[in-house]
Amino acid sequence: MEDLARERAQATFDVNAMRILWAGGEEAFHFHNKLASLVAADPVFLKENKPRLTRKELFLGGISKAARCRELAIELGLSEGDARTLRTLRDDRAYDDLHWNMFVPVLRTQATPEQQRKWLPLATSMAIIGCYAQTELGHGSNVQGLETTATFDPSTDEFILNSPTLTSTKWWPGGLGKVATHAIVHARLILEKDYGVHAFIVQIRSLEDHKPLTTITVGDIGVKFGNGGNNSVDNGFLQFNHTRIPRTNLLMRMAIVTREGKYVRQNVPKQILYGGMIAAREIILMEASLNLSRAVTIAVRYSAVRRQFGLDDGSREIQVLDYITQQQKLFPLLATAYAFRIAGQWMELLYSEVMSQFESNDFSGLAEIHACTSGLKAITTSVTADAIEQCRKACGGHGYLCSSGLPELFAAYIPAFTYEGDNTLLFIQVGKFIIKTILNMRRSPIPQGTVEYLTDIDIHTTKCCEVSQDDDWSNSNVILDAFKARAARLALSLSKRIQNFRNQDDGFEELSIDLVKVAEAHCQLIVLSNIALVLH
Amino acid sequence: MEDLARERAQATFDVNAMRILWAGGEEAFHFHNKLASLVAADPVFLKENKPRLTRKELFLGGISKAARCRELAIELGLSEGDARTLRTLRDDRAYDDLHWNMFVPVLRTQATPEQQRKWLPLATSMAIIGCYAQTELGHGSNVQGLETTATFDPSTDEFILNSPTLTSTKWWPGGLGKVATHAIVHARLILEKDYGVHAFIVQIRSLEDHKPLTTITVGDIGVKFGNGGNNSVDNGFLQFNHTRIPRTNLLMRMAIVTREGKYVRQNVPKQILYGGMIAAREIILMEASLNLSRAVTIAVRYSAVRRQFGLDDGSREIQVLDYITQQQKLFPLLATAYAFRIAGQWMELLYSEVMSQFESNDFSGLAEIHACTSGLKAITTSVTADAIEQCRKACGGHGYLCSSGLPELFAAYIPAFTYEGDNTLLFIQVGKFIIKTILNMRRSPIPQGTVEYLTDIDIHTTKCCEVSQDDDWSNSNVILDAFKARAARLALSLSKRIQNFRNQDDGFEELSIDLVKVAEAHCQLIVLSNIALVLH
Ligand SMILES: Cc1cc2nc3c(=O)[nH]c(=O)nc-3n(C[C@H](O)[C@H](O)[C@H](O)COP(=O)(O)OP(=O)(O)OC[C@H]3O[C@@H](n4cnc5c(N)ncnc54)[C@H](O)[C@@H]3O)c2cc1C
Ligand SMILES: Cc1cc2nc3c(=O)[nH]c(=O)nc-3n(C[C@H](O)[C@H](O)[C@H](O)COP(=O)(O)OP(=O)(O)OC[C@H]3O[C@@H](n4cnc5c(N)ncnc54)[C@H](O)[C@@H]3O)c2cc1C
Repeated sequence: MEDLARERAQATFDVNAMRILWAGGEEAFHFHNKLASLVAADPVFLKENKPRLTRKELFLGGISKAARCRELAIELGLSEGDARTLRTLRDDRAYDDLHWNMFVPVLRTQATPEQQRKWLPLATSMAIIGCYAQTELGHGSNVQGLETTATFDPSTDEFILNSPTLTSTKWWPGGLGKVATHAIVHARLILEKDYGVHAFIVQIRSLEDHKPLTTITVGDIGVKFGNGGNNSVDNGFLQFNHTRIPRTNLLMRMAIVTREGKYVRQNVPKQILYGGMIAAREIILMEASLNLSRAVTIAVRYSAVRRQFGLDDGSREIQVLDYITQQQKLFPLLATAYAFRIAGQWMELLYSEVMSQFESNDFSGLAEIHACTSGLKAITTSVTADAIEQCRKACGGHGYLCSSGLPELFAAYIPAFTYEGDNTLLFIQVGKFIIKTILNMRRSPIPQGTVEYLTDIDIHTTKCCEVSQDDDWSNSNVILDAFKARAARLALSLSKRIQNFRNQDDGFEELSIDLVKVAEAHCQLIVLSNIALVLH
Repeated sequence: MEDLARERAQATFDVNAMRILWAGGEEAFHFHNKLASLVAADPVFLKENKPRLTRKELFLGGISKAARCRELAIELGLSEGDARTLRTLRDDRAYDDLHWNMFVPVLRTQATPEQQRKWLPLATSMAIIGCYAQTELGHGSNVQGLETTATFDPSTDEFILNSPTLTSTKWWPGGLGKVATHAIVHARLILEKDYGVHAFIVQIRSLEDHKPLTTITVGDIGVKFGNGGNNSVDNGFLQFNHTRIPRTNLLMRMAIVTREGKYVRQNVPKQILYGGMIAAREIILMEASLNLSRAVTIAVRYSAVRRQFGLDDGSREIQVLDYITQQQKLFPLLATAYAFRIAGQWMELLYSEVMSQFESNDFSGLAEIHACTSGLKAITTSVTADAIEQCRKACGGHGYLCSSGLPELFAAYIPAFTYEGDNTLLFIQVGKFIIKTILNMRRSPIPQGTVEYLTDIDIHTTKCCEVSQDDDWSNSNVILDAFKARAARLALSLSKRIQNFRNQDDGFEELSIDLVKVAEAHCQLIVLSNIALVLH
């Protein structure tokens, strides 16, 4: 303890200013603290014995915590955003995360105003509990390959949902296994032909006795990584045996099916869906910085109090934090936590900008914004997943005990690499976007937003680094230029290689490893640019 | 399944020859298979429901499996090595691992022949069960800092073991928490002065009713990483409250304490201890290749049957194994599993060589062998720990379910990074050895064994790479030369920087990150050299 106090007293920066920067403002800081003390004081949120609980106890714990969060949210009149902060603070996942982070936003972006009037009050009052059932046993990344069918029956004005194969079983949706009464189900819309995957709202359990409806087989998919981890969530499976739902349960913002079974595409740009996605990714970014900060805080504090090996003069042993290898393990991660936090805050702003552009029917920047948020999701979750384990290792044996908190942080966090878009696929996608931006530069409008630097690609790929002495590196512009130069050079050289392919897609396939590298360099640049902005 | 069959039919190499190479010979291959089918057929070894068990059930499962292994070993007349293979195959850790891999070997290397006559029959018949109690709450890596004391009481001819501080509590020993009757305890030997840390054999539980002896406080340290993982092992804590043991329980091969309390160093080189260590590290190497092979097998097989995204022509989706990014994730790890296996087999040979050198009192090569085994421990466990998680991620969502096997492989394996020497410290140690070898080259005998290439350091640091076309890289000598050049260049340049320090130790401290890099390059070279040998 005295070691910690001494280290803290030695800070050369304004600690309070850093806290406020992290929280995103003075008010946010105080509000956050208030919620945190509520959680700390409430026995329902106790998590001390989590690693010793059985799966059932874990699940029931999740239920109680979700219920208490809902009570508190009502009691305190919390906004949805603040209620989310409360859920983050309880540090335990439950079905309500999916309800609020997936089910409700999908209704908001994909349901018509009329549908919203029907469903949103039910959802936001939690009179119904929803989950998001997209992934199937056989298809995750390839959403277009989903097999569940929704066939229109004009005689009853219903869709018949069916799971024609084993691999079409819905698999993974959080909240589905035991809790949800309703699901957003992605299924192939079948009229006179197959219109591809669309979203439907489907009741799966009775609102009377909570039993699954007769044509529905549903359950929990089993134990997941870690003692606690995501085992408080009932990720589930779901099979439809000719389940009937009203035609109007197709979410019809993008396209409607008429009473006669006609498919009518609505005059709404497809990109409107991105709005919800950006919101979801903002959550993911914030979770990345939060989880990274938790891990790195534990490891840095431990390293300050852990002493190992003596000085020759026989005085007290050295704090392991003073070993340069230990610093190299932890300090870059500490900085990264702040960097991701800043990027997350920037994404919040971006989101409101995008929303106002939408309102004035301006969708021009969307492809760039989409690539940027995909890239940031991929880079932050990849780095954070690895970083938590790095922090754990840095705590030696103690990091392997659940009492250090690190094993559970890891187990609960790592699926972020996979869900909301597998990171490899996201990087490939971002890489393609960059290469295409370069290849189209002469024909298209000039690159904007996070790819703006590509307009100066000639400069970035030819300019020499101006560093002549060590000190020059403390100029953030120098670092920024170096990252731009790297990103631009990798991208330019790859774009030339891609041009050698007769078929661009073959090139992308063959050079996918380089696409990932291009994307990583680009994403690191985005993060860095954001820090540079804040530093200035 | 048909996907797997087709892939297998397409093998361009002799699969059987590979199997035999892996097993280390035809006979070993058949024997291994025999043991494996015994394990597969025996319900005691069932592990299907492991992720759903409580801590207590896990522990009891470990007990039953250990007992059954012992029965089988007696029934089949297995050698100790073969019994170890059987334990590896059961794929579940228990107290007997520590008994056989730590307790018994320490008796063999550190006890006098007389002591061995007393203790070894008890240990090898498992009439007593031993653990290895070195680490304390306050000291892991810094063994010289251990605080437990063993003070000689000439009036009774006993040592009094004591835990003077909270931090002196023994912490981590596997088997200690519930099972072990005896422990090898590392404690400071106090006579007229403090002689530093020595090993003692201490009874901790009654052989009648298994209760802890009155002056001993002992128990389990709590839940560790993972649903199953190492939670079948009773890693324990231990405090002594003036526990008395006979003087003759000091392991006296290196030094004896006489009836009068005189410390007499024996005429045995300290290095003899390395013998046991090399044996232990051979086990660790074999475990690295085994765990890596398990993970990579799961991921490669999954990638062969998992199909995602279609071809334009609408035919079946593509096996994800055919994506280049997926291959880049898995194929190098597949190769690495073989590389580590070969390195492990080489270490087996090395061990018997070292033993015969010992017998002819030749200890000249020991420092090099010690550095080499430290380095191989560090590189193989570091790579394997990360690789298992890489394999898990490559299985998408399915890798996060315990049913994939990967979460448990990870949770059970990762402490190998930390125990038997924290890898960072091992790399630093190896780095120092290499730099010292270079700096002493003029004065000392020429470097041998794995550092022999340093004799040609001038060549390796000046020679140009002979590659002129892609194909040249398939010549393993070219690759070997490249690795030698890298290792030599890094080492030479660091050795020059170290010479700029007045105090060499300050240099090592300040440049420890580079020491790690030098060591990693060197260790990769060792692994590669071994593959090259087998390929020729
Ligand atoms: C904890 C958790 C919670 C989840 N919650 C939900 C939920 O609430 N609702 C829901 O619908 N889903 C949910 N999911 C599912 C998740 O969205 C999917 O797991 C994810 O989309 C990845 O798909 P997959 O698992 O099928 O992996 P796959 O797509 O099968 O990927 C497997 C491997 O193949 C590689 N690969 C695949 N295609 C390509 C390609 N074209 N090029 C190169 N490589 C390729 C991937 O990189 C990966 O390494 C959840 C998953 C987890 C782990
Ligand atoms: C599953 C498991 C089983 C175990 N079983 C046993 C057993 O049976 N018997 C037993 O006696 N012990 C056992 N141990 C303990 C194990 O040997 C120790 O955890 C290990 O020696 C590391 O020591 P530590 O945990 O004190 O880490 P520390 O030494 O405290 O290391 C913490 C951090 O500090 C860094 N560090 C420390 N010193 C330096 C330095 N000089 N320079 C740079 N960095 C430094 C390390 O790299 C690490 O990042 C077990 C541990 C585990 C996890």
